[in-house]
Amino acid sequence: MNRRDLVGMLAAAPFAGAAAIPRVNGARLRERLEALSIYGRPDGGTFADGVSRVAYSDADVAGRRYVMNLMEAAGLKPRIDPAGNIFARRAGTEASLPPVLFGSHIDSVPNGGNFDGDLGSLGAIEVIQTLNESGITTRRPLEVVVWSNEEGVAFNNGLAGSRGAAGHLTPGEMDHVWNGVRKSDAIRKIGGNPDRIADAKLKPGYFHVYLELHIEQGGNLDREGIPIGVVEGIVAIDRYDADIRGFANHAGTTPMPERHDALLASSYLTIAVNEIVRREPGRQVGTVGQITVTPNAPNVVPGRVVQTVELRDLDAAKIARIFEEIRTRAREIAKQTGAEIEMRQVAHHDPALATPEVQKAIEGAAAKLGLASRRLPSGAGHDAQMMATLGPMGMIFVPSVAGISHAPKEFTRWDDCARGVDVLLQTVLSFA
Amino acid sequence: MNRRDLVGMLAAAPFAGAAAIPRVNGARLRERLEALSIYGRPDGGTFADGVSRVAYSDADVAGRRYVMNLMEAAGLKPRIDPAGNIFARRAGTEASLPPVLFGSHIDSVPNGGNFDGDLGSLGAIEVIQTLNESGITTRRPLEVVVWSNEEGVAFNNGLAGSRGAAGHLTPGEMDHVWNGVRKSDAIRKIGGNPDRIADAKLKPGYFHVYLELHIEQGGNLDREGIPIGVVEGIVAIDRYDADIRGFANHAGTTPMPERHDALLASSYLTIAVNEIVRREPGRQVGTVGQITVTPNAPNVVPGRVVQTVELRDLDAAKIARIFEEIRTRAREIAKQTGAEIEMRQVAHHDPALATPEVQKAIEGAAAKLGLASRRLPSGAGHDAQMMATLGPMGMIFVPSVAGISHAPKEFTRWDDCARGVDVLLQTVLSFA
Repeated sequence: MNRRDLVGMLAAAPFAGAAAIPRVNGARLRERLEALSIYGRPDGGTFADGVSRVAYSDADVAGRRYVMNLMEAAGLKPRIDPAGNIFARRAGTEASLPPVLFGSHIDSVPNGGNFDGDLGSLGAIEVIQTLNESGITTRRPLEVVVWSNEEGVAFNNGLAGSRGAAGHLTPGEMDHVWNGVRKSDAIRKIGGNPDRIADAKLKPGYFHVYLELHIEQGGNLDREGIPIGVVEGIVAIDRYDADIRGFANHAGTTPMPERHDALLASSYLTIAVNEIVRREPGRQVGTVGQITVTPNAPNVVPGRVVQTVELRDLDAAKIARIFEEIRTRAREIAKQTGAEIEMRQVAHHDPALATPEVQKAIEGAAAKLGLASRRLPSGAGHDAQMMATLGPMGMIFVPSVAGISHAPKEFTRWDDCARGVDVLLQTVLSFA
Repeated sequence: MNRRDLVGMLAAAPFAGAAAIPRVNGARLRERLEALSIYGRPDGGTFADGVSRVAYSDADVAGRRYVMNLMEAAGLKPRIDPAGNIFARRAGTEASLPPVLFGSHIDSVPNGGNFDGDLGSLGAIEVIQTLNESGITTRRPLEVVVWSNEEGVAFNNGLAGSRGAAGHLTPGEMDHVWNGVRKSDAIRKIGGNPDRIADAKLKPGYFHVYLELHIEQGGNLDREGIPIGVVEGIVAIDRYDADIRGFANHAGTTPMPERHDALLASSYLTIAVNEIVRREPGRQVGTVGQITVTPNAPNVVPGRVVQTVELRDLDAAKIARIFEEIRTRAREIAKQTGAEIEMRQVAHHDPALATPEVQKAIEGAAAKLGLASRRLPSGAGHDAQMMATLGPMGMIFVPSVAGISHAPKEFTRWDDCARGVDVLLQTVLSFA
């Protein structure tokens, strides 16, 4: 029996006051996660074969229809905003108060898993249904949201729905074309209205607090056997392209001392990124994930390499400082290898810190349920970071087995799923 | 005035016995190289824009027709062998003797230059025409050859014509398909006969000696200002694939110490190849020219890399020993990075040493013409290496400006072209 199971047993055991805490229906949640997985499942596959439910696809449309049916079954009336986000509100006793907003997304990456986004979306509906069944009415309205195109595989630009709600769409974004489809048409396909896209922007103070339950996608909680993660914030991301220009030449006829080998320079740079990121304490990460070599032939000295350098940390100043060290090292590598290296920033995402009071509320909810929790940053981006630009925000993480995500093997134990939704429910109640 | 020009002036100056040496017509050679460049020239381009005359293309067919016309104008009757090679014989006074065989190829890489192969092919015809005009008849027959598909861009397998002549075609090679075309049909297109492909094999003792004039494609002669290179041999080539398996994971959520980054391991290996190849004296070269990264996304820790490792030297044992050092280092890198590295040999080409007597004859011919020469290996493969399996072989190199080849900027000064053909002519005469 591992620590998590023990904690679960303790939590399930009767103790003083326990009878007053409503619990979600874990079996129903599982059944629905399995049912949703059908939309985008590989031909002849099972739940374990993952899902390809890329935003705006037929599978996405079908999955959204399924989710809206569940909302209706929970007594909600879903509406689709101009950006294609699905909202569904449950009345509170004081209708004029801003709602507690909570949810996630149901689109996936190709060959993705059945928990990323799905858990937070179906968990939000489960919260409503549990409250219905427990006869609990809150003071504030509750609003469930399922954001559109979180992954950004379609149109290569993520958090699309929540960016619309936060007023962070880029100029001309509706005219972007991906796979032969215009974004405006894609948004129409899921019931949005690109002609009124600006109306998707939520007014300041629209919500009282935004909450999102999500799988960790990393291995910290699973490794440590802790069922609940309290997200401190979503990391800042800086992305650069290193453009390395050497000189392509015949690999047989060009003596070693006369080469300007762009891939050799690239190799030194990749190692430098790793060394510089790792040499100071902290949770910052740095990745060279993509590399394009020209001409990329076995018998030609590589003439040009373009490679990505991505840095992430909760502290934006820290990764800016680390980048300067990488840039200095790049200059030395250029001298040493005879290749030119130009570093260009291609993206910057500010960190989105979770509101301290919301973090405390989540910790309190976990404690109330007898569940161990720890604070941790989110290395991945989430719709919550867009909501953080509008008001108080908090996120609940549950363990990803072996830290695997964006892959069919993505899995979160069913008990952990239910525990996460229980914490979401308690946190919602604490604010509502 | 550089050293080359000085040597040229000296060579052109009258001295004792100089009147007896026939010289080729450099202006005519240039005119014909420029004329041949039209077949495969980019639309609207000039000679300086290079050529794309990939074997079996319409441009190749047209270029071959042009070359056969030149052969006929020189009084030869070209014939096409079953492998698509063009042979044309000039009678000697003793018809029963094996001929002196010499030539090159006229196919190119895409966006290649106008000297690689073309010079040796048109130079061979120029030798015949100069002999005709000088009224010289040799004892032995002379045979000009233009090999088919030397570059091997088509069907990804080079020296195709000369391999046919040497009996080194691979089983089933006629059934290979490339760009939707079967090799047998490609060979028919250029006048070959795939049904009788085995008859392309030359009998042992078919030729007395094989000679090939070619541009160096490296920068040694140009840098040193030496007009004639005497090729010591064509280097051995060993090609390996390094298959590096790490674990693909989210670049934001996977802490640095838990990564199994295949690209990081690849970078260490690329640097190791460079260091190990360079740390001992000699002219060996080692290249990582091609790399395939999976999934190759900016936000994913690379899970797998396959990269080439190519080693070349005249001494096959030396590159075998160097490879063992690389393999040992790869094992250490695998341990250090947590990635698995498997090294697989994918190709081995034996070195083809030029016959010492033929090297001496080329040196003698250069000296007779007052041209400086030096010995050097050929880092690139040539049809001559196939002929070396059948009999005595020698190659003459002329300078490539800045060592550039397989590119539109490939250039050999016109005087150097003519000097190379003069040396070819003298060497032919010394054997014929």
